[in-house]
Amino acid sequence: MLLNANSTVSEAALRAMAHMPTRSLPVLVDNSFSQKLTDADLMRIAVLLAQKSADEGGCPIGAVIIDNETRQIVGKGHNTLVQDNHPYNHGETAAIRDAGRIDFSQTTLFTSLSPCDVCATLITMRGFSRVVVGDVTSASGNETMLQEKGVTVDVLEDPQGIALYQQFRSEYPEQELEDWQGVSAVKARLAKRE
Amino acid sequence: MLLNANSTVSEAALRAMAHMPTRSLPVLVDNSFSQKLTDADLMRIAVLLAQKSADEGGCPIGAVIIDNETRQIVGKGHNTLVQDNHPYNHGETAAIRDAGRIDFSQTTLFTSLSPCDVCATLITMRGFSRVVVGDVTSASGNETMLQEKGVTVDVLEDPQGIALYQQFRSEYPEQELEDWQGVSAVKARLAKRE
Repeated sequence: MLLNANSTVSEAALRAMAHMPTRSLPVLVDNSFSQKLTDADLMRIAVLLAQKSADEGGCPIGAVIIDNETRQIVGKGHNTLVQDNHPYNHGETAAIRDAGRIDFSQTTLFTSLSPCDVCATLITMRGFSRVVVGDVTSASGNETMLQEKGVTVDVLEDPQGIALYQQFRSEYPEQELEDWQGVSAVKARLAKRE
Repeated sequence: MLLNANSTVSEAALRAMAHMPTRSLPVLVDNSFSQKLTDADLMRIAVLLAQKSADEGGCPIGAVIIDNETRQIVGKGHNTLVQDNHPYNHGETAAIRDAGRIDFSQTTLFTSLSPCDVCATLITMRGFSRVVVGDVTSASGNETMLQEKGVTVDVLEDPQGIALYQQFRSEYPEQELEDWQGVSAVKARLAKRE
């Protein structure tokens, strides 16, 4: 296996994991390598998915779901508002959809950005035990709601992910607004300016 | 056009509309026919999408989105938990995804079943002006929240849709529970029984 117990946990290794389809990860990554990955490493994979989305012209938000016991990735994805003309596919919804019909109570979700109301509600309705949030600087608010619903929430900010999101926000403010509140909110903002 | 101003609004016509891909509807339906469709007719299309899902072995919930002015269908779909191994694709999420990046404040969503927390939150975050609910007998609760957020909510029950959902609930109680609360809730229920 390319990534095994003797391999270094490098940015190149994490990027390869981010881009490899989830079902094909076992051809790239040995269990022994997965076991070495820290929470910060897994958050970095979420950020590298956000970077993939930005490279495609999309919103830079990514997410990774791991099995709590094996620490293997069971789902991952990124925002596809632009790429798929998809009005609500955030990092979390993409990763959950990728994982399929599994028991999410045995998993942890790493998201590069604080979850929106829809994603936070989905996280509780699918019974996640733990969520790790990589950016509460650019957005925040649902961490408290998740904790009140019994989800363990850890904030583990990734400076690379925060910088990427801040750059997106300043370059594409309308795209960011649409991603949070839809086309009608963008129209209302533009009408106000006229 | 097969369906025009002179055509009867029959179950066969509504079923053809339910099954025809949204982008191809203009080859089947003339504007003059769309204008004749009542809210009850559009709800029946949502129910016929629910029937399509049931015929595929899935959860019988469908949804239709129309442009408020033209009354043309701009998005539609049905639950695909089983069909696509999709852990959260309800009727509403399917129809919204089908519509793409449009201004939902100019549209009405018809759903054959009262929306869950995730779908209700998505409806508010995408700025829908109106929602029509076809079954508050089998489930309900988010109608009040939607109204408080400024969404017009009309209840227009379709007996055919209610009967279909009730049959599903009695035949596939675990599938129904998974669709609402995920695999972990099903495991908890089964563990209780042992």
